[in-house]
Amino acid sequence: MQTLTVADLEGMEKLARIQLATSLPGIKPISLIGTVDRSGQTNLAPFSSIVHLGSSPALLGMVTRPDLVERHTLANLTEIGAWTINHLHPRILGAAHQCSARYPKDVSEFEATGLTPHFEEGFPAPFVAESRLRIGLTLEDLIPIPANGTQLIVGRVVLIQIADGLLLDHGHLDFDAMECLASTALDTYFKIQPLARYSHAKPDQVSSPV
Amino acid sequence: MQTLTVADLEGMEKLARIQLATSLPGIKPISLIGTVDRSGQTNLAPFSSIVHLGSSPALLGMVTRPDLVERHTLANLTEIGAWTINHLHPRILGAAHQCSARYPKDVSEFEATGLTPHFEEGFPAPFVAESRLRIGLTLEDLIPIPANGTQLIVGRVVLIQIADGLLLDHGHLDFDAMECLASTALDTYFKIQPLARYSHAKPDQVSSPV
Repeated sequence: MQTLTVADLEGMEKLARIQLATSLPGIKPISLIGTVDRSGQTNLAPFSSIVHLGSSPALLGMVTRPDLVERHTLANLTEIGAWTINHLHPRILGAAHQCSARYPKDVSEFEATGLTPHFEEGFPAPFVAESRLRIGLTLEDLIPIPANGTQLIVGRVVLIQIADGLLLDHGHLDFDAMECLASTALDTYFKIQPLARYSHAKPDQVSSPV
Repeated sequence: MQTLTVADLEGMEKLARIQLATSLPGIKPISLIGTVDRSGQTNLAPFSSIVHLGSSPALLGMVTRPDLVERHTLANLTEIGAWTINHLHPRILGAAHQCSARYPKDVSEFEATGLTPHFEEGFPAPFVAESRLRIGLTLEDLIPIPANGTQLIVGRVVLIQIADGLLLDHGHLDFDAMECLASTALDTYFKIQPLARYSHAKPDQVSSPV
């Protein structure tokens, strides 16, 4: 094994250190966050920090930095109190990555990348029409993380839209048929291949794939 | 598209709702968290909520529930102030899933599953010897999430161990050669296949795979 200490990390060239640090969580979810401001200006930004917080009520979190890249997302979702999560598949990956460019606020990433905004009646934020799994959330809380000035955005799931046939029995989603993507660092994307689904593990028996 | 509202979610059978809610982030990281208490009793627990919080200093977060499954982890890391993240590969997946069983506190998941504890001098928490990417962290903060009583555990990266040859140039990790796994919900695991690495996106040009 190769061992890196804090001193090794601090001695790395800045971009290499960011690359490594953003790789440490491993294989991350990747989706497009859809928002809109009061004037109707829409925004899309890729996030790889979506995390499950609870199932009843269904709550999801995501982390926002105090810097340029994501501040349109944070400003919009604070203003409107709602946003969407739109999962990716290979045909929209290029457009999704392009949404990480620092467009000025008056340019919508929908227009810049050709992705199609989709609005549902009664829900203010735009979905990505091309996405096969999209989630509408309302703002539940905004929690400061004092260690580095980031914030945890807590959202309540109020709407789930799933491409026909991909919601299976017992709440399972068919991520394979969805061609759902994963990511690491800020620039690297993966396809996924189903490996195993295990039974609920119990101390007195060896769990096995089902 | 099939649309589910809050009422639809609440009307679902409990396990199906949990399955769906824990699937909503998409493809999640999965790793084993290694801890130890003051008496030397070790513990391993799978977590799929690891999230990148910052690169300088390198900070990672994870979410802990206020219930049985993970309280050994939370109790230990609060007591000792340190823990490890150990990424999975196919040969240790069965053992890793088995660590989600509710063993009593006096049973070490290392012993129960055959995984090998590895200690580094000067760092108190146990690593998983079989893991190809393992990270040692110290407790930076414990942040309550009032919406549902969960907590965000904030850790500072102090040690990174990577199997020989898997740290590439410029801070890239070779997750493909590592056979790093991903997960969704609480029971489903995936292998990954590299799809694309993109150049840094800029507003005035279309980003392309590198």
